Amino acid sequence: MSYTIYLSGEIHSDWREQIKQGILDKQLDIEVLSPITDHDTSDNVGSDILGTEEKNFWKDHKAAKINALRSNSYISRSDIVVIRFGDKYKQWNAAFDAGIATGLGIPTIIMHAPELTHPLKEVDAAALAVTETPQQVVEILEYISQA
Amino acid sequence: MSYTIYLSGEIHSDWREQIKQGILDKQLDIEVLSPITDHDTSDNVGSDILGTEEKNFWKDHKAAKINALRSNSYISRSDIVVIRFGDKYKQWNAAFDAGIATGLGIPTIIMHAPELTHPLKEVDAAALAVTETPQQVVEILEYISQA
Amino acid sequence: MSYTIYLSGEIHSDWREQIKQGILDKQLDIEVLSPITDHDTSDNVGSDILGTEEKNFWKDHKAAKINALRSNSYISRSDIVVIRFGDKYKQWNAAFDAGIATGLGIPTIIMHAPELTHPLKEVDAAALAVTETPQQVVEILEYISQA
Amino acid sequence: MSYTIYLSGEIHSDWREQIKQGILDKQLDIEVLSPITDHDTSDNVGSDILGTEEKNFWKDHKAAKINALRSNSYISRSDIVVIRFGDKYKQWNAAFDAGIATGLGIPTIIMHAPELTHPLKEVDAAALAVTETPQQVVEILEYISQA
Amino acid sequence: MSYTIYLSGEIHSDWREQIKQGILDKQLDIEVLSPITDHDTSDNVGSDILGTEEKNFWKDHKAAKINALRSNSYISRSDIVVIRFGDKYKQWNAAFDAGIATGLGIPTIIMHAPELTHPLKEVDAAALAVTETPQQVVEILEYISQA
Amino acid sequence: MSYTIYLSGEIHSDWREQIKQGILDKQLDIEVLSPITDHDTSDNVGSDILGTEEKNFWKDHKAAKINALRSNSYISRSDIVVIRFGDKYKQWNAAFDAGIATGLGIPTIIMHAPELTHPLKEVDAAALAVTETPQQVVEILEYISQA
Amino acid sequence: MSYTIYLSGEIHSDWREQIKQGILDKQLDIEVLSPITDHDTSDNVGSDILGTEEKNFWKDHKAAKINALRSNSYISRSDIVVIRFGDKYKQWNAAFDAGIATGLGIPTIIMHAPELTHPLKEVDAAALAVTETPQQVVEILEYISQA
Amino acid sequence: MSYTIYLSGEIHSDWREQIKQGILDKQLDIEVLSPITDHDTSDNVGSDILGTEEKNFWKDHKAAKINALRSNSYISRSDIVVIRFGDKYKQWNAAFDAGIATGLGIPTIIMHAPELTHPLKEVDAAALAVTETPQQVVEILEYISQA
Repeated sequence: MSYTIYLSGEIHSDWREQIKQGILDKQLDIEVLSPITDHDTSDNVGSDILGTEEKNFWKDHKAAKINALRSNSYISRSDIVVIRFGDKYKQWNAAFDAGIATGLGIPTIIMHAPELTHPLKEVDAAALAVTETPQQVVEILEYISQA
Repeated sequence: MSYTIYLSGEIHSDWREQIKQGILDKQLDIEVLSPITDHDTSDNVGSDILGTEEKNFWKDHKAAKINALRSNSYISRSDIVVIRFGDKYKQWNAAFDAGIATGLGIPTIIMHAPELTHPLKEVDAAALAVTETPQQVVEILEYISQA
Repeated sequence: MSYTIYLSGEIHSDWREQIKQGILDKQLDIEVLSPITDHDTSDNVGSDILGTEEKNFWKDHKAAKINALRSNSYISRSDIVVIRFGDKYKQWNAAFDAGIATGLGIPTIIMHAPELTHPLKEVDAAALAVTETPQQVVEILEYISQA
Repeated sequence: MSYTIYLSGEIHSDWREQIKQGILDKQLDIEVLSPITDHDTSDNVGSDILGTEEKNFWKDHKAAKINALRSNSYISRSDIVVIRFGDKYKQWNAAFDAGIATGLGIPTIIMHAPELTHPLKEVDAAALAVTETPQQVVEILEYISQA
Repeated sequence: MSYTIYLSGEIHSDWREQIKQGILDKQLDIEVLSPITDHDTSDNVGSDILGTEEKNFWKDHKAAKINALRSNSYISRSDIVVIRFGDKYKQWNAAFDAGIATGLGIPTIIMHAPELTHPLKEVDAAALAVTETPQQVVEILEYISQA
Repeated sequence: MSYTIYLSGEIHSDWREQIKQGILDKQLDIEVLSPITDHDTSDNVGSDILGTEEKNFWKDHKAAKINALRSNSYISRSDIVVIRFGDKYKQWNAAFDAGIATGLGIPTIIMHAPELTHPLKEVDAAALAVTETPQQVVEILEYISQA
Repeated sequence: MSYTIYLSGEIHSDWREQIKQGILDKQLDIEVLSPITDHDTSDNVGSDILGTEEKNFWKDHKAAKINALRSNSYISRSDIVVIRFGDKYKQWNAAFDAGIATGLGIPTIIMHAPELTHPLKEVDAAALAVTETPQQVVEILEYISQA
Repeated sequence: MSYTIYLSGEIHSDWREQIKQGILDKQLDIEVLSPITDHDTSDNVGSDILGTEEKNFWKDHKAAKINALRSNSYISRSDIVVIRFGDKYKQWNAAFDAGIATGLGIPTIIMHAPELTHPLKEVDAAALAVTETPQQVVEILEYISQA
């Protein structure tokens, strides 16, 4: 039986493509959902569609809400939310998505390098798997997808 | 009528005390809940009570879960969750708490310096108030507590 | 056994005071919650506490969200939401509160003059009582409060 | 991945058709649900099917409930509820629908002219986007529908 | 620890008084809630407070809704709903209350004479106890109330 | 957009067939679910499959639970539950189903002769339509199914 | 209309195959979900994918969580959970799954030999059918699947 | 702020008394709920109050349901469910309670000897703490109860 997964978090490496390719290679029946990963488009969507703002706060506010239309909808219809933390930037939105999934009772798989273990301990503790690589995520998906 | 609030996030300044003092000064009928804010106690509680671990991952894991017994219980019985982001550390647990509250449908008040607006835009966009100081939080609490 | 009720809607007549007085006169065990009914305070609370805005939209936005901290919290802990529609103004917030209560599964009592029957038909159809006067609301509360 | 949206509110302009045409033009995978927008049919459905009433209140009551069979069902299976407020009539049913969606945790997009900002501030404050034109709604839908 | 129970159903015998007396005699920490059991008051409350109706359907409709303000509120805050079926009348409201409690996930205790076993089989099958006498209900309450 | 409806209640007239035929004639996109309407099969299913019982109570108990596997599953996936009360038998299971739907927040359409108005007032008061004939139910379904 | 069922519990006999074959033979429209039933694969999946652990507790911990990704997802999308208890091993995971289904409000069918009646009384009491053989389960599924 | 905990599982050692004494000694603000722990009373309550049964299955059935009135009510109002597994008996009811708590989203603390790690891995994996002694449970409760 199929799963729907949402890939949240880091947008500066190709981990999403690796997972999608792995799913394709192994012919898994898994639907993959993602946020808009183009940084500029995503940052400017509020002012682009709804008009410019003088204050950055409101520019960001409008963009973040339009993006939430997609991300909240996708998270709430997923069976599993996979969240990757990279080695740069604050990535509070990734931890925020992990919290939303947890609050909704949707299980998470977290992916990050071992160096991030301590600051991510609360996020990891609520996850059903803590991984380091896209390959591990694909292996888990393959395992739980067996007939 | 009274409110219960939970104060999540930064533990290296006295913002919680300022809010508590403000509530006291204004005689507001508000119950204040907080996480364990002693850093060492909180980090070591898992191994202190349940036994040491060789791997830091499991040491952190056990500590984070015991802390979740308190924080999840407190968040879920709060009317409002107030979350402060400071200028240091990764603070993913703060964003994670904001997400949990959002997933549970509990409103949030976020507090941070203006410099953090951009990386916190998703967290701010889901909040009912974005503040910069403990005084503003107290003023909001005073306002919504009027007879 | 006691009830908690929230009095939403029109703020330009003394209907809330009449209901409170009726509850007092009949010694009913009912806790009465209300929004901030001072129009100016309520409109300006966002800019007063969180700073001024050039655009009215954002000034209103910040005020409405702070007011939502109170109203959503009060609605969600009420057994019954009473909503009065007057003969002036658009009062969309009153219909909005009726919708929120309905979406949360909390029963409503609606109060309005007979002339408003047609435009309020959807709101009335979801209510458990449609009244015209504060006295009728008090009589209903007295009836359902019998030992 | 597809979305289901419900178009609530004003029935005296062609905004629904514009949104549907935009979705068609851009080949978006979006299912569009609407209320019965024929005013007379909708007003008389109760007496037409279930028998006439002497009192207008009950005539309206029966019609509103039959319409609720459709609208509540459609709202609850939507990912996003779009609600337009026009410049005429009381439109309490539009604000009521916005409240129901909010109470159910379903995100809203509101559409109205800038003049209505103040009376709609509570409704706007709970929305994920406040728009002025059908084109903006279509652009948002296009944006969140990207592969 | 205390329980709250709601006593639904038959109003023509003194079974509620027997249960209350038993609770008193055994000094159980149990709060007992009941519907309005005066038949005439309950039938006429809609027209008495909200005005007369020519059609019995609407007279009944208004009364039933006001009574629902009490019964739904009481059922939803109960730990256990006790429902007695007597040997007369249709008592569909009793079976309706049993269904509401079941739909809300609140456990039921059913009370009826053995002759009614067959027509009540669906209601009984969803109950956690099927009793014949008030004494049995009191014994169950005493048993589950032990320190 | 399609609806799923469940037809609960009376099993001694052909009202279900009339509704199904009407849906077919009008080519409505509606999925119709029904309980097992063969009285003997339904009464004996517990002992037929799971073994005989000396006591009628347990024979009924086992049958009612197996039937609940179907009816509860069907009710919970329906958009609308239609419940008909006939002029014979106690039909507590029909009122019980109406209560379950109400407790789950699923709207109901009730069908019965006018003579039953008084004893069904609580059930009717919670419904979105009270009808007398299968034709009226079909007309409502046709109305809410318009494009 | 179709059902989705999840087959939990004992993995050392061919009861799942018997149920699947029965469903096939009777051409029932039922989707059958199962856990990974290969004992070794299931026990080692955590260390196989995520790395070895010195302590058995953590090895088991990681495996159990990956298996929960599948089982919790499958249980929550099932209409009925069928759980078989065999005559060997502790099988706490089977009782745990029965509890999860019960906590989520999903009905259960339990299967076990009569000797296990006493220790399984709590699990049986919450079920909608208690069976002894795969054939009985198939007969129940056939019965509730009638047109 | 206080917690309510429910102590489920093994009834043949004094672990509940040790936890209660520890709470008393440390003056923690914790309400402790327990099942009926007298084995004979608990096994016979169904036949004692509701009449004897020839078949053990129904005797057990009636007893288990009356006990569920208490345990389900207590579990659902607890902040934390503590479940101890001893070294004897099947204890499926303990694993069942752990599952119910998990299905309801209530966190668990599990207590058992290390020898039981493997068969309890699914139950442990869903817990927020896995302990071996009542003292550890008390220490955790003390830790999360700090001001």
